[in-house]
Amino acid sequence: MLGETGGEKLPKFDVLVIGAGVFGISSAYYIKKNSPEKRVLLVDRLGDAGQANTGRSNAMFRNTFSSVDNQMLANASIDYYLHVQDEMGIDVGVDRVGYLWLMTDAQLAAARTHLAKMESNGVEIRIYDRGELERMIPGFVAGPSSEEARIMSLGEVASGVFGAKCGRLAPDRLAGHYRDQFRALGGDVMFNTEAKQLVVSARETTGIDGEPFVWQDWHVTGARMADGTEISADTVVVAAGVWNNELLDPVGIDGHCKAKKRQLFTISVAGKPSLERLLRSGGFNGSGVLPMVILPKSGVMVKAVKESGEFWIGCEDEVNRPYVTYPEHDLDSYGPEPSYYEQNVYPILREYFPQFEGARPSRMWAGLYGYNTVDNMPYVFAESGLVVVGGDSGSGVMKGDSLGRIVDAVYRGGEEADAVLYDGTPFRASKLGFRSRDVEREDWLL
Amino acid sequence: MLGETGGEKLPKFDVLVIGAGVFGISSAYYIKKNSPEKRVLLVDRLGDAGQANTGRSNAMFRNTFSSVDNQMLANASIDYYLHVQDEMGIDVGVDRVGYLWLMTDAQLAAARTHLAKMESNGVEIRIYDRGELERMIPGFVAGPSSEEARIMSLGEVASGVFGAKCGRLAPDRLAGHYRDQFRALGGDVMFNTEAKQLVVSARETTGIDGEPFVWQDWHVTGARMADGTEISADTVVVAAGVWNNELLDPVGIDGHCKAKKRQLFTISVAGKPSLERLLRSGGFNGSGVLPMVILPKSGVMVKAVKESGEFWIGCEDEVNRPYVTYPEHDLDSYGPEPSYYEQNVYPILREYFPQFEGARPSRMWAGLYGYNTVDNMPYVFAESGLVVVGGDSGSGVMKGDSLGRIVDAVYRGGEEADAVLYDGTPFRASKLGFRSRDVEREDWLL
Repeated sequence: MLGETGGEKLPKFDVLVIGAGVFGISSAYYIKKNSPEKRVLLVDRLGDAGQANTGRSNAMFRNTFSSVDNQMLANASIDYYLHVQDEMGIDVGVDRVGYLWLMTDAQLAAARTHLAKMESNGVEIRIYDRGELERMIPGFVAGPSSEEARIMSLGEVASGVFGAKCGRLAPDRLAGHYRDQFRALGGDVMFNTEAKQLVVSARETTGIDGEPFVWQDWHVTGARMADGTEISADTVVVAAGVWNNELLDPVGIDGHCKAKKRQLFTISVAGKPSLERLLRSGGFNGSGVLPMVILPKSGVMVKAVKESGEFWIGCEDEVNRPYVTYPEHDLDSYGPEPSYYEQNVYPILREYFPQFEGARPSRMWAGLYGYNTVDNMPYVFAESGLVVVGGDSGSGVMKGDSLGRIVDAVYRGGEEADAVLYDGTPFRASKLGFRSRDVEREDWLL
Repeated sequence: MLGETGGEKLPKFDVLVIGAGVFGISSAYYIKKNSPEKRVLLVDRLGDAGQANTGRSNAMFRNTFSSVDNQMLANASIDYYLHVQDEMGIDVGVDRVGYLWLMTDAQLAAARTHLAKMESNGVEIRIYDRGELERMIPGFVAGPSSEEARIMSLGEVASGVFGAKCGRLAPDRLAGHYRDQFRALGGDVMFNTEAKQLVVSARETTGIDGEPFVWQDWHVTGARMADGTEISADTVVVAAGVWNNELLDPVGIDGHCKAKKRQLFTISVAGKPSLERLLRSGGFNGSGVLPMVILPKSGVMVKAVKESGEFWIGCEDEVNRPYVTYPEHDLDSYGPEPSYYEQNVYPILREYFPQFEGARPSRMWAGLYGYNTVDNMPYVFAESGLVVVGGDSGSGVMKGDSLGRIVDAVYRGGEEADAVLYDGTPFRASKLGFRSRDVEREDWLL
C-alpha cells in the first residue's frame, strides 16, 4: 500500500491513471489485467471510485443508440455488467427494467430510420400502441388537453418505443467492482490525491532552463499532485471527465469536452396510492415496475426506484443552459434549482401523469455531463506519453467497460490497435481518436 | 449612419453580424449583396475592421492544403483577392511570392500523398532539389553540422516544395475592402461597439419570469452590447473568432474553438548585406524576393518583406503552449516573449541561415490562432436564429471570401444550401456544420 504523497519520494510507475470515474477505473483494471507486470497507479481527488459525476448520474443504461458504434460500445458493456451480476455474483444493481420512449406520430416517423438501424443490428425494440400504454400504465394521459398543455404544445402520445436491453445499475457499485478487481491484481490506488498539472519533459534534456524547447522531442512524464508531489510514469492516462480540459489545455492538448449541469429530483410515493400504482406498472419487464419513461416533450424522464419507493425525475436540458469548460471541483457549486423542477419539469410531468399533481421533490441533486458536441461520441486518443479518454456526453456509465478495454488497447498498441470488447466484437481504437476519427454521430440523446 | 448605442432605441435589424474580422466582414458583405432589401448591421468592439487577430496574422495565403475542402476554399478566395487587386484595382497587398517548404528526404516521403492529391486537384507545386536551392538562396546551409544542430536534430534539406499560388496579402486592407463594399451597398456598421451577450427569447412569450422554459421554442433574437443597449435582429451571425465561446457557451451552444498564442519577430536587413541578399533571392517569383520559407524543424518560418526591408520570423508552436478557451479581450495580454525567439526560434534559424547570426528582433507581437482541433477545418452552422462561423486554425484570412459566401448561403437557405465560391465551385454548406459534418481533415499545418 502507498501512503500519503506529501513530501514522499514515490517510485516511478509504468502507468498513472488520473480519475477513478467509470472510464478511469475500468481503464486501470484492463491495463493491469493485460500487462500484469506493469506498475499501475490510479489516483483520484475524492475518497473512493465513482464519487463525482459517475456517482451523480441517473444510473441508467441502454443500448438504444442511433450510432452503430455506440450500439456496439454499449451492448458489449451491458453484457459485461450482466455477467458481473449474474455469473460473478457481484451485485452492481443491474435491473433490466427497459426504457420506454413515449412518442407522437411525428416523433415516431422521425425515429423510424434510427429504429430500423437498431433492429438490423439486433437491438431489441418493441413498439406499444396507445391503447396498450393506457392499459398498462395506470393513470397515464396520452393526450393532455388542458389550457397549459396547449400552451406547452404537448403532443398526443401515439406509441411507446420500448428498449428491452436497457435499465438501471448502481454506478458506485460498478466502480467499486473495478476498484476491487484492480486492487486484487496488485494495482495501486491513491484516493484523496488530486492531480493538478501534467509534467512535460524533453526526451533528451539539455539542462537549460525553459525546456522543452520547440526543437526538442517532448512527452508527458507524470503529474504534479495538489500537495506538490510529482508522480512519474511512462504513460499517463487522463480520465478526469469534465476536468480533462483543466489538465490538458495548459500543455496545448485539446480536452475536447464541455460540461453541462443536469439535475435530478426525487418524488416519494409514500402515502400516494396513485403514484404507488404507477411505480408498479406491470407487464413491461420481469421486475414489475414502470420502465424508464421518456415523455414526448423536452426529454422529461421518469425513473421508478422500487426499493426506495420513489421516482427520479430528470429532463433534457438544452435551453439556455451554459456550457462550462473548466468546472469547479466542488460539484455542490452546481446545485439543483427548485424552480427548474417547478417551472420546467413539473408542468409537463403532471399533464401526462396527473397523479404527480402537487408532488414536490424530497431530494434533488445535480451533476455534470461531459459533452463532445462534435458528434456526441466518446473519444480515446494517444499523444506524447498520454492516453486520453472522455467526452461521452452523458452516457459513459453504460459504455464504461468497452472504453476501458479501448484505452488498454491504445496503451499497448497505439491508436491503430484493435480492442476486443467483452462480447468479442473487435473495435478499431482509431475510430475514437482525432487523427482519423471515424465514428457515427449519435443523435438519440437524452 | 447610426450613432452611439448608449440609451438609444435602435430599430430591429434583419441581420446582426458580430465581429469585423475577415469572416465577419465578408459574411456581412455577401449577405447584404445577395439580400439588398435586408437591414444588415455589423458591430465590432474595435475601431475598424480586421484590427484584432486578422490584423495580427502573418498575412500570408496559400492553396497548398492536404484537405481537398481547404484547397477549394482557399483557391477560390485567392482568385477573388487577385481579382480585387488586378481587376478592381484595389490594392489589398497581394504578392504571389510563393511558399517554399524545405524538407528532408523523410519529410518529402511523408508528404508525397498530400502532394499527389494537391497536384491532381490543380494546385501548382514545383519541387527544387538541394543543388538548386543552394544556388538560388545565397548563404543557405542545407546540412547544418554544428554541435548545436546535432543537439537539435536538425535534418539535412534534400528538397524544396514550392507552392506557386501562395504569397502575401494585407489583411487590414482586405478587411477594409469588404467594409467599403458593404457600406456602399447600404450596410450599417458600428465600430467601438462590443457585443457582450446573446439574447435568447421564447418564440411565444407567456409573460412568466424565467423564460424561455424547456417546453418553449426559443431562438436568439439579438445581442446586448457592453453599454447595455440591446440590438434586435432576426438572425445573428456570430463571427467573433477566438471569442466565439464567450458568446455561445453561456447559451449552451458550443463555440468549438480554442485559442493559442502565436508570435512574430521582425529582423531588419538594414546594414546587413548578407541578409539583404537573402531577402532578394531571385528566381522563385516575379517579385524577386525570397518566398515564404518553412524550415524542416518546428515549422520555423521566414517571410521576406521587401518594402520594409525586414524578415518576419514565426514558428509553429505546438510544445507546451496552452489552449485558451476564453481569451482576454486585450490582445496585449498575450505579449511576445523575447526568450521564445532567443531559445526556440533563433537557434534553428541561424543554422540554416547563418546570416542571421546575432540578429535580434526590432519589433515583435503576438496574436491568437483559433483552432478547431477536431479536424483543423473551419465551421459554419445554423442554430435557433444564429449562424456561426469560425475555427479556421490559423488560416482564416486565406479562406475568408469563401467562408463569407458560405455564411450567406446558410443565412438564405440553411445548412443544406449550396454556396457558390468565387470561381464557380459549388460548396455544400452542411459539410462545414456539425449535424452532418463531412470535411476532409487538414494535416498540412503551419
